[in-house]
Amino acid sequence: MSTIGELGEFGLISLLTRRLPVSPDVQLGPGDDAAVIATPDGRVVASTDLLVEGRHFRRDWSSPYDIGRKAAAQNLADVVAMGARPTALLIGFAAPFTTATTWAERLYDGFTDECGVAGAAVAGCDIVAAPEITLAITALGDLGGAPPLTRAGARPGDVVAIRGRLGWSAAGLALLTAGRDGPAELITAHRRPEPPYAAGAEARAAGATALLDVSDGLVQDLGHIATASGVRIDVDAAAVPVPEILGPDGLRYALTGGEDHAFAGTFPANAVLPSSWSLVGSVTEGTGIRVDGREQRHSGWDHFRA
Amino acid sequence: MSTIGELGEFGLISLLTRRLPVSPDVQLGPGDDAAVIATPDGRVVASTDLLVEGRHFRRDWSSPYDIGRKAAAQNLADVVAMGARPTALLIGFAAPFTTATTWAERLYDGFTDECGVAGAAVAGCDIVAAPEITLAITALGDLGGAPPLTRAGARPGDVVAIRGRLGWSAAGLALLTAGRDGPAELITAHRRPEPPYAAGAEARAAGATALLDVSDGLVQDLGHIATASGVRIDVDAAAVPVPEILGPDGLRYALTGGEDHAFAGTFPANAVLPSSWSLVGSVTEGTGIRVDGREQRHSGWDHFRA
Repeated sequence: MSTIGELGEFGLISLLTRRLPVSPDVQLGPGDDAAVIATPDGRVVASTDLLVEGRHFRRDWSSPYDIGRKAAAQNLADVVAMGARPTALLIGFAAPFTTATTWAERLYDGFTDECGVAGAAVAGCDIVAAPEITLAITALGDLGGAPPLTRAGARPGDVVAIRGRLGWSAAGLALLTAGRDGPAELITAHRRPEPPYAAGAEARAAGATALLDVSDGLVQDLGHIATASGVRIDVDAAAVPVPEILGPDGLRYALTGGEDHAFAGTFPANAVLPSSWSLVGSVTEGTGIRVDGREQRHSGWDHFRA
Repeated sequence: MSTIGELGEFGLISLLTRRLPVSPDVQLGPGDDAAVIATPDGRVVASTDLLVEGRHFRRDWSSPYDIGRKAAAQNLADVVAMGARPTALLIGFAAPFTTATTWAERLYDGFTDECGVAGAAVAGCDIVAAPEITLAITALGDLGGAPPLTRAGARPGDVVAIRGRLGWSAAGLALLTAGRDGPAELITAHRRPEPPYAAGAEARAAGATALLDVSDGLVQDLGHIATASGVRIDVDAAAVPVPEILGPDGLRYALTGGEDHAFAGTFPANAVLPSSWSLVGSVTEGTGIRVDGREQRHSGWDHFRA
């Protein structure tokens, strides 16, 4: 079979779900009206994202495997950002009839492998025909008895810390847009972000008061914490890691670039954080977000403005 | 504000989520990285669907309110078909910049009202820009301590019963395709199916061995039960309700038309079913599905073949 149109909906579902690994969390996987996933905590953490070809990914810039890894990663990171353990993904996959079957298989390999890194499994999928490839990913997770880490818990006196790379994906996207092919590390970072999933458990252990993953840019996302918590956040630009590879625009990429899925949180001033975390700011009374004392207008990615 | 592009992603999310009702099941709703939903059973039932403009709905044929009702209904029905109580929807909404804000508001009113009928609530959403309107709906539900009703439990000797309308949506679609405007009941049935959500609890109380909602057509969907259960299913066409309003093609619509989201299940031969259920067939040893003794090739809706 060379295209998914030739294989048909049910043949394709059968082909793709045969490749999925089993998981103790997924009590009933693809093939019925719905999946059944264990939620030992008595609550489930759930996040959903839509990714549209040409807008969130390009088939000429990324392999299907990388697209699958990235789509899974950004949703698994949302679950980790709540302080939960990711357990399962549900996937909606829309594609033209002419899409190669092998493209779909590699996409699902990407979903599966990223789930493996995060400790989750693919529990369900829906496959439909559409003019553009569209991916709808829902990630589920378990809180293990602890309260969720929301955006609303930051308090004056807290410190702000980050874990993971910032600006790498934006720098890689700028290279691809300019038609350049290196530095390869940056392009790879754009194609396949590597959220440090351990950050959720580390943040909880350190007493985090708020946590999120940086999807839209550090300044904008910290702005969401400031708004939800009713506090002001001050970022010290000199404290934000800007490795030389990011080039002359490195600080701008690190402050406003999205899609690396680093984690940013607020912690009590006396919190003890692993060395993989960087202190980058502080929380005070007030509103909004400032960088080096200058008020910011939450700059970053807005799907309807960019 | 007249278009969602003018309002922006975060303005639109704020506008739409302000309208959502609260629910005891949704412990943390839209606005964070993920929602938190109660799963008192210790398991969650989860189903996901993608709906693409022009393929699953047409804006010139259906109002945004009806599109929202229908998109929610087909997913809530999947959860009920597992014998679970629907608790929450997660929604991905992709739309062009030029979409009217009021269109999006009416769409969400449709989601909300259908959730109200089924006893669920909207727990989360993601909104992105895209050339076509695309909806990704994930429904969650709770089993209340009972085992899931899958497609795999039918046994030789069982009877087959259905609850809800069959063929109405297909007949309505045929009218719309032909440019006709009546009978209005059929067109309304296509625009806004009314799954009899009580069927899940009724089926469980009657000892159902398998259950599903009819999404793709009765013959095809019963074929899924036959395959998953390793049995043969015989349908007696004369027992399938075909009201006169369905017209001369009524039996064909009732046997092969999808999207009414009636429920079809198998039950022990001595099961006592409410009068709202119709006995339409029987389960025997063997494979496949027959109508009046003739083997069927699972005819119905395949997203990549229709």
